[in-house]
Amino acid sequence: MGKIRINANVSLYPMPVVLVGAMVKGKPNFMAVGWISRVNANPPMLAIGINKNHLTPEGIKENGTFSVNIPRADMVEKVDYCGIVSGRKADKDGIFQVFYGEQKTAPMIDDCPICMECRVFDTIELPTNYLIIGQITAAFAEEECLTDNKPDVQKIDPLTLTMPDNRYWRVGKYAGAAWDVGKGLKG
Amino acid sequence: MGKIRINANVSLYPMPVVLVGAMVKGKPNFMAVGWISRVNANPPMLAIGINKNHLTPEGIKENGTFSVNIPRADMVEKVDYCGIVSGRKADKDGIFQVFYGEQKTAPMIDDCPICMECRVFDTIELPTNYLIIGQITAAFAEEECLTDNKPDVQKIDPLTLTMPDNRYWRVGKYAGAAWDVGKGLKG
Repeated sequence: MGKIRINANVSLYPMPVVLVGAMVKGKPNFMAVGWISRVNANPPMLAIGINKNHLTPEGIKENGTFSVNIPRADMVEKVDYCGIVSGRKADKDGIFQVFYGEQKTAPMIDDCPICMECRVFDTIELPTNYLIIGQITAAFAEEECLTDNKPDVQKIDPLTLTMPDNRYWRVGKYAGAAWDVGKGLKG
Repeated sequence: MGKIRINANVSLYPMPVVLVGAMVKGKPNFMAVGWISRVNANPPMLAIGINKNHLTPEGIKENGTFSVNIPRADMVEKVDYCGIVSGRKADKDGIFQVFYGEQKTAPMIDDCPICMECRVFDTIELPTNYLIIGQITAAFAEEECLTDNKPDVQKIDPLTLTMPDNRYWRVGKYAGAAWDVGKGLKG
């Protein structure tokens, strides 16, 4: 098979990078998260895996709400800062211009081209992490990032992350139309 | 804030693309999945959101095992085929050379640079999808895809997916060192 066994602590390649926002004791707090995925089609839900030691889950638990903000690649320093520095040690309130939607406890980041507000649907306690499942109740986008009313990844210019080498990447070249390019293989 | 409200059915940007393998009624079956994330640090766990109508969850339920295979971008046609065609309608057994690790019911794909075998930890029933949480019990890599014994995304050359525009992309340029590039912002 030409393969060797490696440590089972394997990442997905590549992971999206988002800033998760929550109100902690009345103040907006943001953390960088790479362990996130959509998990339910209808209603739209996503899930995030957050280490139990972080401050953000406390705010999410307190309010039952959080936000998911997709940053542009040119925000990489601020994104990384939110991954390095805990809200327990630094006040991240002033880093971003914040806005709110329907839920007054899901702070969203003005600078991010795509922002979603979420309501907690369920929280699963895993050995080291909370798996927080949230319903996306509203979403906001910079109009300049849309093509045919859909978010356009080339205009968003998001970050991706790889671990354990710990590197950020941009999205690269177009590689084909999904639910289409494989049609030729139909037998 | 310069933003407009969009449909709440928003994706993450970008999503990884994997092939999930399961044994269904004694035969290997594979489906393309973009809704996947690591969710627990220790032991290593990941979670996938799969529509309840798919065949693959039946095999995962039957055996309590599955595999996650990270394909190379040049496999895009086969990957997409596995996203288009259900195992109910076509036998996907012959598309890939398959190998097995410790678990004899988690078929892995020889052609994929990174393969993981997983044991089901829990299955959460969401409105339209199953959220299947699995522990990664073993992982295998092509030696040529490693740098300093770690998987190297530039050598793996994986696919990413965006929805609802339904396009595959490759990973692009390096954008900075994670847990490092933001240090300058520390106050």
